[in-house]
Amino acid sequence: MTAAPGRAGEFDLIARVRARATESSTRDDVILGIGDDAALLRVPANRLLVVATDTLNDGVHFPPDTMPFDLGWKSLAGNLSDLAALGAEPAWATLSLSMRDADAAWLDGFLDGFLALSGQFGVALVGGDTTRGPLSVGVTVHGFVADTHGLRRDAAQVGDDIWVTGTLGDAAAALSQWRAGGAADPTLRARMDRPQPRIEAGRELSAVAHACIDVSDGLLADLAHVCAASGVGARIDVDALPGSDVLRSMMTEESRRLVQATGGDDYELCFTAASGQRGAIAAISAKTGVRMTRIGTVIAGRGVSAFDGQGGAWRAPRLGFDHFGA
Amino acid sequence: MTAAPGRAGEFDLIARVRARATESSTRDDVILGIGDDAALLRVPANRLLVVATDTLNDGVHFPPDTMPFDLGWKSLAGNLSDLAALGAEPAWATLSLSMRDADAAWLDGFLDGFLALSGQFGVALVGGDTTRGPLSVGVTVHGFVADTHGLRRDAAQVGDDIWVTGTLGDAAAALSQWRAGGAADPTLRARMDRPQPRIEAGRELSAVAHACIDVSDGLLADLAHVCAASGVGARIDVDALPGSDVLRSMMTEESRRLVQATGGDDYELCFTAASGQRGAIAAISAKTGVRMTRIGTVIAGRGVSAFDGQGGAWRAPRLGFDHFGA
Repeated sequence: MTAAPGRAGEFDLIARVRARATESSTRDDVILGIGDDAALLRVPANRLLVVATDTLNDGVHFPPDTMPFDLGWKSLAGNLSDLAALGAEPAWATLSLSMRDADAAWLDGFLDGFLALSGQFGVALVGGDTTRGPLSVGVTVHGFVADTHGLRRDAAQVGDDIWVTGTLGDAAAALSQWRAGGAADPTLRARMDRPQPRIEAGRELSAVAHACIDVSDGLLADLAHVCAASGVGARIDVDALPGSDVLRSMMTEESRRLVQATGGDDYELCFTAASGQRGAIAAISAKTGVRMTRIGTVIAGRGVSAFDGQGGAWRAPRLGFDHFGA
Repeated sequence: MTAAPGRAGEFDLIARVRARATESSTRDDVILGIGDDAALLRVPANRLLVVATDTLNDGVHFPPDTMPFDLGWKSLAGNLSDLAALGAEPAWATLSLSMRDADAAWLDGFLDGFLALSGQFGVALVGGDTTRGPLSVGVTVHGFVADTHGLRRDAAQVGDDIWVTGTLGDAAAALSQWRAGGAADPTLRARMDRPQPRIEAGRELSAVAHACIDVSDGLLADLAHVCAASGVGARIDVDALPGSDVLRSMMTEESRRLVQATGGDDYELCFTAASGQRGAIAAISAKTGVRMTRIGTVIAGRGVSAFDGQGGAWRAPRLGFDHFGA
């Protein structure tokens, strides 16, 4: 096959991905990695397999000016965040990459970001495909939970505290600045482009929490999924939502409430736990270095009600991000 | 959320996929299926996990006039074919679907095809996502092989017979007719749109064959992968390649050789086995109802050499389909 300089055919790209994936991770449980029709993997005894999949499309899930490094990072981070929400230990990933052109330099940048994050959690890239098409990144991740543990959406109980990790709203604020045509604040933009999946926090919380979800579509929307799955309602205090100093310094109170309650892409964990677990959760927060903030209570009924710090009802103009929303 | 008639938001689509997936399959090993952040699955003891992933993009991997049913079928079939090449038993699938519009009728047609094939093999659809974007279908499938079995590309041995299942060339002939602007012969088009993954044959062959690959990029290209991975060469007889009656009736000898040796999308298995296994392979062919044809021999050296029935060297104008080929 012939190829112009700086361009490569599909098999060259696969060879490139394979070489970099192989040098970046060795796991004994990968019997056969990239290079065959399928990967051959060993799941440990007494563990359940956890599988999450997510696709990012150009202009829908990320701005067209997103750097290849950041896209590589983010495409894996969103999936790892789903594993975190189940309290899983990550193990393997596959990558389906559609590109308009076979640009080896772009691919290297993308892999730099993807492999930086996969290396942080010891995740092996074990398969995938590269195809021609509009820029799109599909990632499937695999992890494990103990047979007797694991968090899920449908386990919230009336009377539970509602908690959230880290801070909310930075990613949405960055997107809002970008949409307004300005350069986003670098700190906020970094939160949007390189979210940190809460893997360690999720694993620790699986022993003490009831329900859990990651905040990808917006807190109110995601918490509503927990309520629907668990057959309960929720009451939250929008003024208790944890926000970064940058966010607090640059936004009016009402704008801040909006991005924090409805903005997507934070990839924090929202979880519920019995009030008797407050001490245990404080200990997990100290151990993992991840802030954990109590923001409300699970109540009988259905749906999420939001109130401000003075107890007045607060209504969001919209309930999170729906890719197909009318 | 409001939605115009015949259109649905992302969460409606997910609910639709979830309802249809749930009614079409119940597997005891699915602890948590569609509807949480990730699926929770139980891999049987003494089995290795097999994972394959593949993406189909509009206009690259299928003609724009492909019916939704056929696209649903084909997107799963290509992945199941990868499992077949490892001799695996299929179990679960995830689906990432990007659509320009949230068209519920189109989605139903797509699911009709996807679930018709998944039902045939008892595969449960356990997760995925729907997003807005150019039409693209990403599927990841999971299956099992016994700890001590499984086929792979790198196991061909000098002296092995080279075999192929079914017939070759129908899908490429249909694509060629479609590209020429005519309606493809319905029999050929059906081979292109609804390939039958050779799951049962692959599982039976895992006890007797050495190396195996599925023919998705074209026989010569795929066999070259086996040779490269195994450190061997191959010699094949292009006039021994099995062809359907329709193909034989409509093509000149040279055109037929070309589509059979280089055409993609057949999803047959090409495998190697010791000559002492010919009887066993005939028995598997009889048991599974899948034709198996001996087409060549594994030799010392490297690369694939093709000869015609008279022993003259035969050279293909091109070596299979490369999505990024220059």
